[in-house]
Amino acid sequence: VRRLSLYLRGLEELEREGVRTVASEALAARAGTTAAQVRKDLSLFGSFGKRGLGYAVPPLQAQLRSILGLARPRRVALLGAGRIGAALFEYPPFRERGFRIVAIFDEDPEKIGRRWGGVAIRPVDELADTVRREEVEIAVLAIPAQAAQRMADMLAAAGIRGILNFAPVQIQVPETVVVNDVDMSVELEALTFALESAPADARASGTAG
Amino acid sequence: VRRLSLYLRGLEELEREGVRTVASEALAARAGTTAAQVRKDLSLFGSFGKRGLGYAVPPLQAQLRSILGLARPRRVALLGAGRIGAALFEYPPFRERGFRIVAIFDEDPEKIGRRWGGVAIRPVDELADTVRREEVEIAVLAIPAQAAQRMADMLAAAGIRGILNFAPVQIQVPETVVVNDVDMSVELEALTFALESAPADARASGTAG
Repeated sequence: VRRLSLYLRGLEELEREGVRTVASEALAARAGTTAAQVRKDLSLFGSFGKRGLGYAVPPLQAQLRSILGLARPRRVALLGAGRIGAALFEYPPFRERGFRIVAIFDEDPEKIGRRWGGVAIRPVDELADTVRREEVEIAVLAIPAQAAQRMADMLAAAGIRGILNFAPVQIQVPETVVVNDVDMSVELEALTFALESAPADARASGTAG
Repeated sequence: VRRLSLYLRGLEELEREGVRTVASEALAARAGTTAAQVRKDLSLFGSFGKRGLGYAVPPLQAQLRSILGLARPRRVALLGAGRIGAALFEYPPFRERGFRIVAIFDEDPEKIGRRWGGVAIRPVDELADTVRREEVEIAVLAIPAQAAQRMADMLAAAGIRGILNFAPVQIQVPETVVVNDVDMSVELEALTFALESAPADARASGTAG
């Protein structure tokens, strides 16, 4: 799945550069993998490439967007109006990929009522109502670990479908909710592990893995 | 590797709670995996557990820290004093794990000369000298995609060993440099892919995968 995201990122770059067709080798270089891997991955979703011509950029891009669940915009709630929340709110690729942050929540009375780009920061007790009214599908948890489970419970009860969890703790959710955990320490430790175990070896197993 | 990080996080939580020994089941729950997986992973690095008693928390924690390359502090340079850079600079787990940001670089003249917690923001032309003087091992790239390759080249030339890359682009580095890519869009798309393909299914393949 991560490689598909990286192929899409490569295709978007190529489109901005005005490229209309791309060889598997060139797409592989943009995604940090091999041409054989590109051909294998894309063949799983139907045959897009033409021998000797490569892949047509716009249709492959559309197909990947559809596979990745990006064919329609996704309405997102941000929990936590701290520094990580602010960084995510302003992260341009989210908007480009159709993720729209339509609600922001925080527990700090100092922050409640402020607006970020037209979106009001609301108190957590308005969470359930707002999620339903704004038809929020996905929540981003950019809050401390100790608040994460309580917020996850409220989100699940409000009918959220997916959670991107930046809180450094494992949250328990019903089977109807999909969770993806992002822990910055884990990412940095994947790097130090690689430094320790194979100093002169290739890449750590990040998004390229 | 990612699971080892999550076990370490779980052991740190347990230690804070005053727990001295832990069963594989309890550790598995904190890391979002199974007891069998915990036992299998840990057996690869020697036998820590005692049947019926579980794992002794402090020695297992020390061993995992060593395996993950955390036995000594790591000196880190932050490239990019924007919102993502600020969020990372203040991220408590980095400090707790022994990652010390000893240098910050930015190209914005408005930011150069300011201090974050005693660390001056420097211009990029001081990068090579500073990396050597401060004995920086790891760089965190929190900069736009178009600047990433140029900075990676400078870092590699200055003798950096590892790069945690938040720029949404694949960077090319010599074999002596380890790169781990973190792309927030990829993480969010792993979630929408899971929503699209298996609405009522379990977790996406994040750090738990």
